[in-house]
Parts: sequence; structure tokens; C-alpha cells
Amino acid sequence: MARCDELARITSTPGAITRVHLSPEHARVNRLAAEWMREAGLQTRQDPAGNQLGLLPAADPDAPVLMLGSHLDTVVNAGRYDGVVGVLMAIEVVRLLQRRGGTAADTGAPAQSPFEFGLEVAAFSDEEGARFGKALLGSSAVAGTWDDAWWELEDPDGTTLREAALEFGLDPGRVASAARRPDQLVGYLEAHIEQGPELHARGESLAVVSSIASARRFQLVVEGEARHAGGTPYDMRRDALLGASEAALAVERICSAQHHIIGTVGQFEAFPGAMNVVPGEARFSLDLRGEFDGERDRVWDQISRELDEIMGRRRLRWHTREVHNAPALFCAPLLQDVVSEGIRATLAPGSRSAAGAGAGVLASTRVDDPTTLFSPAGHDGMAIGAITDVGMLFMRNPDGVSHHPDEAVSFGDVALGIRALAEAVAHLAAEHRSTQGAS
Amino acid sequence: MARCDELARITSTPGAITRVHLSPEHARVNRLAAEWMREAGLQTRQDPAGNQLGLLPAADPDAPVLMLGSHLDTVVNAGRYDGVVGVLMAIEVVRLLQRRGGTAADTGAPAQSPFEFGLEVAAFSDEEGARFGKALLGSSAVAGTWDDAWWELEDPDGTTLREAALEFGLDPGRVASAARRPDQLVGYLEAHIEQGPELHARGESLAVVSSIASARRFQLVVEGEARHAGGTPYDMRRDALLGASEAALAVERICSAQHHIIGTVGQFEAFPGAMNVVPGEARFSLDLRGEFDGERDRVWDQISRELDEIMGRRRLRWHTREVHNAPALFCAPLLQDVVSEGIRATLAPGSRSAAGAGAGVLASTRVDDPTTLFSPAGHDGMAIGAITDVGMLFMRNPDGVSHHPDEAVSFGDVALGIRALAEAVAHLAAEHRSTQGAS
Repeated sequence: MARCDELARITSTPGAITRVHLSPEHARVNRLAAEWMREAGLQTRQDPAGNQLGLLPAADPDAPVLMLGSHLDTVVNAGRYDGVVGVLMAIEVVRLLQRRGGTAADTGAPAQSPFEFGLEVAAFSDEEGARFGKALLGSSAVAGTWDDAWWELEDPDGTTLREAALEFGLDPGRVASAARRPDQLVGYLEAHIEQGPELHARGESLAVVSSIASARRFQLVVEGEARHAGGTPYDMRRDALLGASEAALAVERICSAQHHIIGTVGQFEAFPGAMNVVPGEARFSLDLRGEFDGERDRVWDQISRELDEIMGRRRLRWHTREVHNAPALFCAPLLQDVVSEGIRATLAPGSRSAAGAGAGVLASTRVDDPTTLFSPAGHDGMAIGAITDVGMLFMRNPDGVSHHPDEAVSFGDVALGIRALAEAVAHLAAEHRSTQGAS
Repeated sequence: MARCDELARITSTPGAITRVHLSPEHARVNRLAAEWMREAGLQTRQDPAGNQLGLLPAADPDAPVLMLGSHLDTVVNAGRYDGVVGVLMAIEVVRLLQRRGGTAADTGAPAQSPFEFGLEVAAFSDEEGARFGKALLGSSAVAGTWDDAWWELEDPDGTTLREAALEFGLDPGRVASAARRPDQLVGYLEAHIEQGPELHARGESLAVVSSIASARRFQLVVEGEARHAGGTPYDMRRDALLGASEAALAVERICSAQHHIIGTVGQFEAFPGAMNVVPGEARFSLDLRGEFDGERDRVWDQISRELDEIMGRRRLRWHTREVHNAPALFCAPLLQDVVSEGIRATLAPGSRSAAGAGAGVLASTRVDDPTTLFSPAGHDGMAIGAITDVGMLFMRNPDGVSHHPDEAVSFGDVALGIRALAEAVAHLAAEHRSTQGAS
């Protein structure tokens, strides 16, 4: 938790937390994370997409790795736990598993994974997309789904992603080498605060994640005519701002009538943006999420028809550019199972912590099935899912506030989360051994 | 018209016209206008508020002056005639009246007003308020209604008006010396394009202005809570952008139901402004104009009650700061009369232009009363009206477009406007002589 506070002080906006992709703050948190990874015995490197990685290799240098991690970038004026706590927990889980397996660096033995697979901590460079509009840049590079067209994306100052990468010290020509092959990975596990109120409402600490929302993001432009605010009667106006305002309200009306569909207009600007000029253009964003791709797409069609009606009635034109489209990601059944086992082992009455236990999987009293939640928020697993199995653990978030300075998670829930994740990895290793043995 | 084009090329945004108060572009247009004023025999100076002035003194150095002018600043992405054409016409009117009175500089005689009062061309530095939110900064200094609190106004980059003035080379401590006393002025006459469609619809070239709209401007802030776009269900959201969108639509609904009341939301921003964050704050502007102060204020009260309802229902807070409040300005009956006479003399069948006429007021065939229009748009006369009589002439604006690159006025209508304004001045001089003679 102290490290979350330390990372929170690395920000481009004093008094708030803002840390975007390829910024000087990004370089600073990577350096700090690398230091903590090395302390935990990991071999560190920054990959060509700006991801900070730390590896604890298996005895067999060709063995695949289990990746554990999350991201260190933030939205504008963020909280201190989204992403960050998952990276720090991954480092602690690796430290705990080493100590438990007797392979801890501080024992003097060469730092090595206690399992047949290596353990790798990933601190992804861009998950939020706060700078270039496109999210998951870091994990997409690792997944090998990088699109070279992204190099021309611009930040609000007109700096392209390519320019920012060069400025940061990365070689855009080498981004493909950040990609992993499926056979190099056992899976990807991530701990994250829940970005909603469900666990808090249920009075529970931890949950298994079943799937990550299907998401589409759009930039929309409404075009009317800029005219003098005094001299233009209402019947002559083609006010783009009013069309966009109606559109934002229509998104709320349409989505709130659905189950598990969320549409958000988060950006909104009017041009030319003078007090005494009827806006001739308005631009806004739409973030649309759903549990299932088909339902999400039907809702987008409905929103599109509504925009046609609004803009037609107001004699405005509208067009849109889709900047992000990710299908729903279903967490792998095996990884859902091991996360579930990890939570059970941690929360079971009389269970001992992994830290205090001997090698092997803890025997634990069977408890009720842990809560399983769908994640309406996106995560790095959406990208990593292209090459390997993904599993996620959620921790309770008081009031469900996220992407906001009030974002919180308790010390106790993080401690439970670390134990549960370590248990999950141990369970996975046991499964892995039995599968390998059978093959 | 060529000079309008020349000024249009002086802009901070290549390919568009944007020229705000105390910018490098402001300095350049002042220098150019001063050059043209000197060509017309005027004695030039830039006053401590950045207004560019050109004086043609009367024979009696203590005689008051008739001020003719408009402004050289623009909105963002402006047209090329609003303000600009009025300044250039004022220079031409003075040139024409000198030539007609035999006092033209090119005759070799000392440049002197042909009337008992001096003639002074004013190119005001800030009418639009595009940079600091507060409009009429230049003419307010001349009117002696400057408020030292304005020095702390900030532009969008956080530069204060004081810093901008110093940067421009002005001494903020001397602004009071820009003020004129009522006894130093005979009146103020301004030609301006109509910023609406009335003259075009009537097929007429020129109109007398009866009054300038009563105007209030507000900056409004809506406060909600920034939250994660995915994880926050609709019933937990306090989305400031949606509240502000409803407010903008309410302004349209309330004002469009009234006669001669116009409300415009021209600026609109959402914060933090990320695609995946529910906006916790929205800021927007309201420009409210009416023919009469009382009606305008009643409509503001109605809008305020509506905002209370909207924000209460959405669990948002709102507050506002009034940044501009100008009562309706009624043009002086005498100046309305002379402008009317000027238009009649110019448009009457068989009338000769002032340029071709001898000294004295032209006899003209009586024509129908020229059209009289109320101006919903604000003008420098609103400030200057505090110290002297104001009269205005409108020229036809095809389609009524203003504050937009498509803003237009015809060569023919500008030529008629110059003649009519020169005739109006000559009529005023005749009235002045008879009044002075009678007193």
C-alpha cells in the first residue's frame, strides 16, 4: 500500500494523479517497478512497447511462463489502485511463492521459479488509452496484435505515437519483437480492484471474474453551422452543440433501458467555442460496453438510428470513427477454477496463509463458491486473451468508485488478494504437473 | 474591400481568421490601420487600452469630436467584415468629407475637419471578448467604465489581462487616461454589417439601428462525480455532462418560446474528459440577449429555476459567475434621424453621392422611411453610450451569416453605406451649427 502511495506521487499534474503512455512519468514508474522487481529476484527489462517486465525463469530455460500483472498508466485525475495494485501484488505473489518454494533470492540460491513454468510480472505501459484514445497499446504489443497504423495516432497536443515512442527512447521498428507466441505462455493472471459496487454491496472481499465486457469506442462529430449568437434566429440555426447534447441524453436513455449495457459520453467539445457564436461543430466520444457482443452491437444500431433522427430534425450532419472494438473476453474455465480455489483456500475458516505453509497446495475446508462477477470495465486480459488463457481476481472497492481520486481498496482485502492469487498459482502448478504427467 | 482582405490575412490561425485582444496580430492590424489613417490625413495614436485612433481636428483645438469607428478584433474562426468594415468605412468617410469640404490632405492644406467638431476614427481593440471572456474592453476604457478587477481575467492559457497588456507594450497603470469626458464628444457613429437576415429578406441595402440588445453572459459549472465508465451503474452515476446537456436544451426551449430573446450555449467542456470516465464536471457558457432588460432578466430567472430542477433530479450541483451584463442601449433620436437622412439621401432616386457634391447637405427627393432594426448583437456603442450619444447604420448581410468565414457584404452595399454615413455626418454638422447658433 505504501508503494501505491509512492507511485501516486509520480504524476504530470501536482495534486492529482495523471500518468499517461510514454510520458516522463511513465519512465519513472517503470524504473521504480523494475527496482522492486529486482528486489524480488526478477530479471527485468523494458520491452519495445514500453512494458516493464520482470522474469523468474523456470529451471528449464525453454519452459513457458505464467504471466502475472496489470498496468501502471492512469486516466486523467485517477485513483491510486486501478492497475497499479495488480502490478505490485504480482511482485508480492512471486516473492511469496519463491519463499514458499525455497527459491527466494535472499536464501542465496539462484532465483528460480519453484514451478515447472517460469513466472513473469508484466507492468503494461498503456491500458487506459488516456493519451492516444486507443486503449491496451502495451498488452496489444505483447499479444502480437499491434497495428502499425497506430503509430500515427495523435495525442491532444498533436504528438504522434511514433514521435512519443522515439522521445521515450523506444525504437518503433522493434515493436513486433515485444510479441509472445502462445507456446511461450501458460496463461495470464491479473488481480484488480472491482470498478463497481457489487462486492461492497455483498460484504465480500474477493471475486472470480467470469468475463470482460465487450467494448466499442467511437469518436463522433456533429456538423452544423457557426453563426453569430445574437443575430441568428432559432429557426435559422444549425447548432451542433444542441444536436450533440440530445445525442448524449439519447445514449443514456437507450442504454439504461437495457441489462448489462453501459454507454458513456466522456469527452465533449464545441467549436469554435466562443460565448457569442452558435457552435458549428461538436465532437464527443462514446464508450459502449456489454456482456455480449451481439447485444452491444444491436444497441449501437439503435443509437445510430436515434442520431439520424436527431441530426435530421436539426439539419445537422454526423459521422463517426470507431477507435476501439474488443469482443467480450471469457476467462478460461481452468483459470476461473484456480482463482476460485485460491479464494476458497484463503477465505476458508482455519486456512493458513500460503506464506506460512509448506510447499504444495494447501488443504482447505470447502467453503461456499466464491462470487463470480462479469467485468464491465476493460482490462489488459482483453488483449492478452488473443494468445493465452486469462484469469482474473477482483478485490472489493468501497462504494465502487474508480477512475477518481476517491478510489479505494482496504489493506486487508489486498492481503487476502495476494494470498488468494498465490494459492491460485500453486493450484495451477499442480494442475500443470498432472496434465504434463498425463501427456 | 481589398483592405478587408488584407486584414483577414493577419491571423493567429493560418487558413482561418482569428485575431484576439493584445495578440501579435492585434499589434499588426493596429499598425496597418494607423498607416491607412495617416494616408487619409489623420493624426494617429494607440491609446493605453490598445485602441488605434486617428484624429482630424477641428479648427478650434478645444472643439469636441465626432467619433466614427468599430473594432478590429475577431471571434475565433471569424468572417472578414464584422467590425473591420466599420473601421475602414470610417476612414473613407473622413477622407470623403475632407475632399468634399476642401480640407483633404492631398490639397496641400493642413488636414482639418470641415466641421465645427473634429472627426476621430476609433479602431477598438476588443469588442468580441474572445480572449478574456469579457467583451468591450477597448470601448469600456474609452468610456471610462474600466474596472481594475478585469486585469486579473485570464485567457485559456492562464495569461492574465495584465500580463498580456505588459507583453503588448501597454502600461496598465495608464488605462484611465484612455477615458474621454462627455464634453469632449459630439457622439459616436458606427457602420456595421447586420448580423442577421432581416435586410436580406426585405431586399434592402441599409437600415437605421434603433437599439442594441440587452445582454448578459454567464459561465456555468455543473458538479457531479467522476467515476469509471464501465463499472458504475446508471443509478449510481452523477454525470455532470448529462446535466449540462439537459441545461443547454432547456435554454433553447425556454428562449425560443419568447419574442426577441436569444440564449446561446457557445462553450461546453467536460472533465476529466476521458473516453472511459463518467464526467464529474461540466462547464458551459450562456449568452442571453433581449430587446428589453426586464424581459431578459425574467427569462434568466426561468432558466435558473429549470437548472435547479435538472440538477436536483440528477443529484448534481451547479453554480454560475456572471461575466458580462450590459443594459439595452437605445440609439440617440438625433443620431437615428441623421442616419435616416443619410440613407434617404443616398438611396433617393437621382441623388448624387456626397463625393460628387459640393459642400453642404444634399437636397434629396424624399423617399420612404428607411428600415429601422433592433440589433440583437452587441456593439462598441454599448460601452460608448455611457458617455455620449450613439448612432448606427446596418448594411445588408446576405443570408445573415456572421462570426463565420462565410460572412459577407457586397461592394455595392458598402459603397452605399459610406455615402450614407458621410451624409449623416454632414446632416449632423448642419444640426450642430443650428443648435450652436441657437444657444
